[in-house]
Amino acid sequence: MYFASDNTSGVPDRILTALGKANSGYALGYGADAFMDQVRTRIRALFEAPEAEVFLVTTGSAANALALASYCPPWGAVYCHSLAHIEVDECGAPEFYTGGAKLTHVAGDNGKMNPDALQDALARAGRGVVHHVQPGILSLTNLTECGTRYSVSEISELSAIARSHGLPVHMDGARFANALVAEGCSPADMTWRAGVDVLSLGGTKNGLMGVEAVVLFDPAQAWEFQLRRKRGGHLLSKHRFLSAQMAAWLEDDLWLELARDANAMAAQLEKGLEGCADLLFERGGNMLFAQWPRGLHRQLQSAGAQYYLWPDHQDLDGLDHAPLSARLVCSWNTQPDHVGEFVRRLKIHA
Amino acid sequence: MYFASDNTSGVPDRILTALGKANSGYALGYGADAFMDQVRTRIRALFEAPEAEVFLVTTGSAANALALASYCPPWGAVYCHSLAHIEVDECGAPEFYTGGAKLTHVAGDNGKMNPDALQDALARAGRGVVHHVQPGILSLTNLTECGTRYSVSEISELSAIARSHGLPVHMDGARFANALVAEGCSPADMTWRAGVDVLSLGGTKNGLMGVEAVVLFDPAQAWEFQLRRKRGGHLLSKHRFLSAQMAAWLEDDLWLELARDANAMAAQLEKGLEGCADLLFERGGNMLFAQWPRGLHRQLQSAGAQYYLWPDHQDLDGLDHAPLSARLVCSWNTQPDHVGEFVRRLKIHA
Amino acid sequence: MYFASDNTSGVPDRILTALGKANSGYALGYGADAFMDQVRTRIRALFEAPEAEVFLVTTGSAANALALASYCPPWGAVYCHSLAHIEVDECGAPEFYTGGAKLTHVAGDNGKMNPDALQDALARAGRGVVHHVQPGILSLTNLTECGTRYSVSEISELSAIARSHGLPVHMDGARFANALVAEGCSPADMTWRAGVDVLSLGGTKNGLMGVEAVVLFDPAQAWEFQLRRKRGGHLLSKHRFLSAQMAAWLEDDLWLELARDANAMAAQLEKGLEGCADLLFERGGNMLFAQWPRGLHRQLQSAGAQYYLWPDHQDLDGLDHAPLSARLVCSWNTQPDHVGEFVRRLKIHA
Amino acid sequence: MYFASDNTSGVPDRILTALGKANSGYALGYGADAFMDQVRTRIRALFEAPEAEVFLVTTGSAANALALASYCPPWGAVYCHSLAHIEVDECGAPEFYTGGAKLTHVAGDNGKMNPDALQDALARAGRGVVHHVQPGILSLTNLTECGTRYSVSEISELSAIARSHGLPVHMDGARFANALVAEGCSPADMTWRAGVDVLSLGGTKNGLMGVEAVVLFDPAQAWEFQLRRKRGGHLLSKHRFLSAQMAAWLEDDLWLELARDANAMAAQLEKGLEGCADLLFERGGNMLFAQWPRGLHRQLQSAGAQYYLWPDHQDLDGLDHAPLSARLVCSWNTQPDHVGEFVRRLKIHA
Repeated sequence: MYFASDNTSGVPDRILTALGKANSGYALGYGADAFMDQVRTRIRALFEAPEAEVFLVTTGSAANALALASYCPPWGAVYCHSLAHIEVDECGAPEFYTGGAKLTHVAGDNGKMNPDALQDALARAGRGVVHHVQPGILSLTNLTECGTRYSVSEISELSAIARSHGLPVHMDGARFANALVAEGCSPADMTWRAGVDVLSLGGTKNGLMGVEAVVLFDPAQAWEFQLRRKRGGHLLSKHRFLSAQMAAWLEDDLWLELARDANAMAAQLEKGLEGCADLLFERGGNMLFAQWPRGLHRQLQSAGAQYYLWPDHQDLDGLDHAPLSARLVCSWNTQPDHVGEFVRRLKIHA
Repeated sequence: MYFASDNTSGVPDRILTALGKANSGYALGYGADAFMDQVRTRIRALFEAPEAEVFLVTTGSAANALALASYCPPWGAVYCHSLAHIEVDECGAPEFYTGGAKLTHVAGDNGKMNPDALQDALARAGRGVVHHVQPGILSLTNLTECGTRYSVSEISELSAIARSHGLPVHMDGARFANALVAEGCSPADMTWRAGVDVLSLGGTKNGLMGVEAVVLFDPAQAWEFQLRRKRGGHLLSKHRFLSAQMAAWLEDDLWLELARDANAMAAQLEKGLEGCADLLFERGGNMLFAQWPRGLHRQLQSAGAQYYLWPDHQDLDGLDHAPLSARLVCSWNTQPDHVGEFVRRLKIHA
Repeated sequence: MYFASDNTSGVPDRILTALGKANSGYALGYGADAFMDQVRTRIRALFEAPEAEVFLVTTGSAANALALASYCPPWGAVYCHSLAHIEVDECGAPEFYTGGAKLTHVAGDNGKMNPDALQDALARAGRGVVHHVQPGILSLTNLTECGTRYSVSEISELSAIARSHGLPVHMDGARFANALVAEGCSPADMTWRAGVDVLSLGGTKNGLMGVEAVVLFDPAQAWEFQLRRKRGGHLLSKHRFLSAQMAAWLEDDLWLELARDANAMAAQLEKGLEGCADLLFERGGNMLFAQWPRGLHRQLQSAGAQYYLWPDHQDLDGLDHAPLSARLVCSWNTQPDHVGEFVRRLKIHA
Repeated sequence: MYFASDNTSGVPDRILTALGKANSGYALGYGADAFMDQVRTRIRALFEAPEAEVFLVTTGSAANALALASYCPPWGAVYCHSLAHIEVDECGAPEFYTGGAKLTHVAGDNGKMNPDALQDALARAGRGVVHHVQPGILSLTNLTECGTRYSVSEISELSAIARSHGLPVHMDGARFANALVAEGCSPADMTWRAGVDVLSLGGTKNGLMGVEAVVLFDPAQAWEFQLRRKRGGHLLSKHRFLSAQMAAWLEDDLWLELARDANAMAAQLEKGLEGCADLLFERGGNMLFAQWPRGLHRQLQSAGAQYYLWPDHQDLDGLDHAPLSARLVCSWNTQPDHVGEFVRRLKIHA
């Protein structure tokens, strides 16, 4: 019963096989390998973006921080939700890579920024006044950290506000595939057509070992991005082992298949929880938040269920009946019988 | 005939097998996996350093930059050779990670810093004078970028000078294993017993996909290192795929075996070059520098030989008889017949 | 009728005289002048802190940013009020100088952090969890940006919370003298005895040309501070022109006299506003915030009254009767008849 | 006998008078004062550069570092002489402000970069190769740190090389006025007409309290410069006290008069030294380097002569007859009888 994170799962066999195949012979390093050509071509086609540039790194934090630094100056404000991964879970990587930009919270329910709040933040920002950090970039996460999903029109609305103030738009797509298949739209619709300039396209949470693509829809920042990547220590010499994974992941739409599997497990789990637990947010993909009494958490966890409490850093010790929330994440590899077992135990004890 | 770099080779089968094994089931992320416990235990034993802390990253630049930043303040001078990888080939990663430290060249032949030059640089540094960058750290590379090797006593001599000025010592060991087996000493002898505080222990050039360990012999900086690693985007969630590789690499001394193979190929190549090419430096491990006329370079390269000219960024077009130097690197995977073929062609045309 | 800021006033004659006196002859630069010895001695005596180190810079932003950087690592959180000058008005100087620390808001009315909110923020900070920025430093401003004043016991309470979590405490004292004379306590009581480790002691807003002292009650960080100051370009060669000003300012308690004058003018203004304008906050020193209709703002400003609307960046154009707030700041040089004239006009039009 | 530095002198009376005049009344802060308008207008006229933007800061390190940061990216190489102030005497301010650029030495005698060496450095820089820091900016100092002077044609030659590689050019003009009057050319000739993009125009060493102008001949970087200045804590609120000084300094060519005085004293000193001391470099303005035995240094210094040995950090204790070099700097305020007395004593003991 592993619902702690989608990154506690390994990778599908096809990824291992691809690594094996990539291992034969000698290959030029640093991204000059043939697999990278495949990846680039495939992403351009998938995103209907023939000019886009694509670069690989090994972590989502690196993808986000490098993307932000390439589009936002040190004196810029990065507008994001207060729960955003870049704000909460990257130990200041965006501040480090940008040279000290300021992450500025835009309020909104369910982990989604409210357009009025963004409008208001930009109106009050004091652009052109030297004393203040200047509007820099909008960064939105899809799926959000609450497991909810920005629809294409919601993305477009936020992007339009940002763009009307001259700001570029970044999307943290650590769970982009999950959002995409749930929304049922094209990659282009969810990104550049909706105003996104640069995408962190997450592979790790969806079946890769540690591979994330950064997609720059406008290639103007590509060279700067590459220098920042190198300087950040994120340009791998044996790069083929990243690109081979991602090539296999994109082939035959494996990435979408994996995301659909994860989402389906989450849907099954959601159905199972009906009637015995309150959901906190509308499920957007492969992640659920639900509430039940602390005593029940203790019983589930001692039965082997693995998941995080939400918000973080709470205590399982205390009054039995106090309500606590669980974050439950399904992965490409979540087993139906684990979901079944989890629901069964929940119902017994509830 | 692939002598461009030891990072153009892939990985031994045992590493692929290890990845497959590591892939089963769920695992806690971010270094809390069981393979990492094996790696830590093994490195502590190998280095006779029961207190040492060990962390993994995916590139040598990250290993070096994070190590330097954890030991050298932003206003520090990093004493290194002018040919050092940290100076030449990391696009300023050390400056970025340290927050602007100054890499200060220490002269010396054959890629090795001269102790008198280090002594002199430290004497003239103006420690305690606020106008000047302050002595920060000594960083030496073994094998050096010239393919030469610091002996244990040479390391000790340089370290002793650094330490007498209160400086910690970093070793860039991208080719540490090659140096170690060539020197025939113990890991402890080449590092902490010789005064090294922190080691970048290279796995990538010696048979891994992109795994480097940083070994902190004094664990006092370990927490800072971890925060810097996270903040640099270098803490992998599916960390088991790094640790499993390194565990397999250390098992049964595979790492030493791979290094011995690479060194042996370089020795064979060296022998073959005798009489038909001038060696530039004394060979310390798996890397050779040799000189012959430009016309011969052209013939070799059009016959498929792959290697870099040295120094970088020279031109193959020009006078045939002008002498140019080649950098020839052997890897764990260099084939004896490739060496033979290379020497044969060299002799034909020489 | 100049109430825009206390920095629109010049300096008292005694400061000009001191500059003239300091101008004679040759003097060692960079703080090695005799005036600086006087300043240091006097501040140590005034603050009953014989070990304290004192350094001068030319702006409050430099004082704050250098102080924060000397006590908070790049991965640290700086706890402050959302209206703090370091957050709003320094264009990211703290982020720049610290190397990317994260300013984290602590809620509270009247520009003052609420102790419970601080307690809560620290409890939720996730100290020891590598994914999160780590608690770094508490920074409080006295007088606050709302013109209110932390009492000694309020400072002590906040500091005690910070210290119980191992955090140092910084005070932005841009209007420290105004707070001090209003509170009627000793400098020591308002600072180190109340738990403050490092003080930005503002001279500029209280009668100097551009001189701020940073007082480090524990001298352990003094050398690092000096290197950061130099590296920030804030070590003046003809330093005597800073120290001579501050020496004269401290002599015969001129600094307190100037602050009393400013506070008295604000008190007179407050009394005048009674009955015709709503005050937003309890006045703590030389600054008032009051609300009246937009039409009245227009009349006052066209009559020559100078002050900022609050919050910033609002518009004087619009409905006449809409209430808008004014920030009114008195300085050492505010003239009683200006206050009288301002009140008179306000009453006429109100 | 004060020859330690031109910054050990105070300021001419006219500067003090200007401060007194500037002190009357209220003034808008942060550069919006009327004196700054005068300064801007005057500098544009003097430099025949009607589009130039001008900003004031209080130190040369700030002027240089902010100028470099506005024109050179974090991954850029700053080409400069190994003796350059930015390399030696700013404790890493350029690295700090640029976010980690690399100062790269260009060899040359007499403190002046050799054009061939610059050409060579740029040719070997590996532009477009992601592993290497990229060519960023050329920074030359006039007068140089050896007291020599780049002629207009020398500046043009170096600038032309830089520009042919797409690099902007910075001039550290801490002693610009001394160079200008010695060269006898126009400000435009020594700067933008010779290819300089941005000038640090030093006032402090030539009669101001701590005022330096940065002149951006192309205003495109002006807004970025202002944000960097603010963020660096270098935007003074009571800015009028900077601009009033500089306005007075420019009025009636006082700045040139002061520089001529300093140069004349150095010429008198040079003449006095003839026959009794070896000059190290050709004098370019107000600074001399001369060599004599250590015993004579001891006698001069115990007679009250103040100057630095060169290079720094040498020892007056030791063999009497060992030759040591002195750096002798004259200022606007150097007294002829001091020069006379110095020469007299030198001749007695020589």
